[in-house]
Amino acid sequence: MYRPEIKILDCTIRDGGLINKWQFSDALVRATYQAVCEAGVDYMEIGYKASTDLFDPKEYGKWRFCVEDDVKRVLDGLELKSKLACMVDIGRVRENDILRVEDSIFDMIRVACYVKDVDKGIALANEIMDKGYEVTLNLMAVSTNLEKDIDEALEQINQTQIPCVYLVDSYGSFYSEDITFLSKKYLQALPGKTVGIHCHNNRQLAFSNTIQAIIEGCNLLDASVYGIGRGAGNCTLELLLGFLKNPKYNLRPVLKLIEDHFIALQKEIEWGYIIPMMLTGSLNEHPRSAIQWRAGPKKDNYVEFYDQLVGSEIVK
Amino acid sequence: MYRPEIKILDCTIRDGGLINKWQFSDALVRATYQAVCEAGVDYMEIGYKASTDLFDPKEYGKWRFCVEDDVKRVLDGLELKSKLACMVDIGRVRENDILRVEDSIFDMIRVACYVKDVDKGIALANEIMDKGYEVTLNLMAVSTNLEKDIDEALEQINQTQIPCVYLVDSYGSFYSEDITFLSKKYLQALPGKTVGIHCHNNRQLAFSNTIQAIIEGCNLLDASVYGIGRGAGNCTLELLLGFLKNPKYNLRPVLKLIEDHFIALQKEIEWGYIIPMMLTGSLNEHPRSAIQWRAGPKKDNYVEFYDQLVGSEIVK
Repeated sequence: MYRPEIKILDCTIRDGGLINKWQFSDALVRATYQAVCEAGVDYMEIGYKASTDLFDPKEYGKWRFCVEDDVKRVLDGLELKSKLACMVDIGRVRENDILRVEDSIFDMIRVACYVKDVDKGIALANEIMDKGYEVTLNLMAVSTNLEKDIDEALEQINQTQIPCVYLVDSYGSFYSEDITFLSKKYLQALPGKTVGIHCHNNRQLAFSNTIQAIIEGCNLLDASVYGIGRGAGNCTLELLLGFLKNPKYNLRPVLKLIEDHFIALQKEIEWGYIIPMMLTGSLNEHPRSAIQWRAGPKKDNYVEFYDQLVGSEIVK
Repeated sequence: MYRPEIKILDCTIRDGGLINKWQFSDALVRATYQAVCEAGVDYMEIGYKASTDLFDPKEYGKWRFCVEDDVKRVLDGLELKSKLACMVDIGRVRENDILRVEDSIFDMIRVACYVKDVDKGIALANEIMDKGYEVTLNLMAVSTNLEKDIDEALEQINQTQIPCVYLVDSYGSFYSEDITFLSKKYLQALPGKTVGIHCHNNRQLAFSNTIQAIIEGCNLLDASVYGIGRGAGNCTLELLLGFLKNPKYNLRPVLKLIEDHFIALQKEIEWGYIIPMMLTGSLNEHPRSAIQWRAGPKKDNYVEFYDQLVGSEIVK
């Protein structure tokens, strides 16, 4: 697929950090940024911006906070070919954590919120735009929303200047027909805006669902190196680069990065096709119960986990 | 998706055996058959039938040969709820290896052949039908054929009594649009016949491509436990069972089987999302070079493998 409007955003460190509290080495983050630049990827989201008085810097790595000086130091001397992005959650960042764009290494800030909090999300996105950044609004977990509430949120966003809205499959529970249905809905409700896609891989559908979103007209695509990300992880960057025909993209640096860093990393921290994550995806649930189960003594007792999930589902 | 005509064929042992020369323990094969039966799966393909004078039984396990007495002994005492199938390759089986169906534990024999050998495939399928079995003809590696040759093969098959023909993505190189194109072609060319689907997972598309084939009208679906199979493996049975809505299917026994046997097995033998297998799939090549690479001393040198593949591609 070659469509000049299509851009890729690498979310390796930001979404991957949900596994290990952003405790990545500086060397790994620097190598990832270099590879992403060489691969021709348009944006790299290098973490969250959050207040250090809300999260303990002893517990969380620097990519939880994205303090400007930290980011500049780690990337010191590199040509900033890929635009830098970070994510903010409503309520977890203070206004003074966000500099004006002229004083910042970042080009884009993405606002993540639930449909119920769309007003807060819009307000924060407006503040960020006022400071000069590119902005996106990422509506999380819409697989759990009633359609009327999604419609209402999109209508509100349509009244704003926010240029890009993300369709997010937070739980990895969408089939391609769901992607088709929602992509069409977003694109129709948001004329003139870019629609982005962020998929999770609980059922090995993140790549195919991203392709489906491309077919439907989504133009900003999230992916991560070797699929790293919370739970089952994301659409893999290497598969996406292989699919897109735009000659600006280059697969080889990403293969090198996987070889040099991510094979070793996956022996330390867990993501990918893992049965408990597959089950929460199938049941359209947050992966937290699966992540807890995998951290416990019965991590490979799939039937017991399944019985708990299905049992609690019946009780609801 | 609920369509009463849809049936599942489990190819765990047959396709998985391509990894380890069918050296599975009797206990694992018996447990797999039991789980497949309890899950309500329609067929289980338990291996290949082949002549012991063509393959050395010291090197290959019993599921390479599927000698009737061996199969009966391993499954002794079990109720044969799922129909038993085996596969034959043209030229690798002799007529006297195949009993008449009344004397056999098997219900179905699947004939695998390339498009160029379709006449031989049809002849063998006819012999097998004459002995009373259900039969399928599996046209392998059609991603490498010219369309006119596929059309000609389908036209020939259409003249026969063979009731089922498989669309096979041997190299894991198809996108959903390829599945749509070929499923339509097969179904149009073969009125009244069942079309089956067998996908490989090199690009994490085996499950989504199987769903696409279902949407297009394919009714016999191959899958394997935890996706085991040559190279990247197949569509996973547990994902497929989760997708299909027919109440005859039951996921829980398959989860138990994975927990009891397949997690340990995957520590011994390799399948799944592995970069060299991803690359051969992307380049529409047989996985043998990737499998060899993974068996060698530089198994995680992805860039070197990629350069070889792409280099040899340019030379072609």
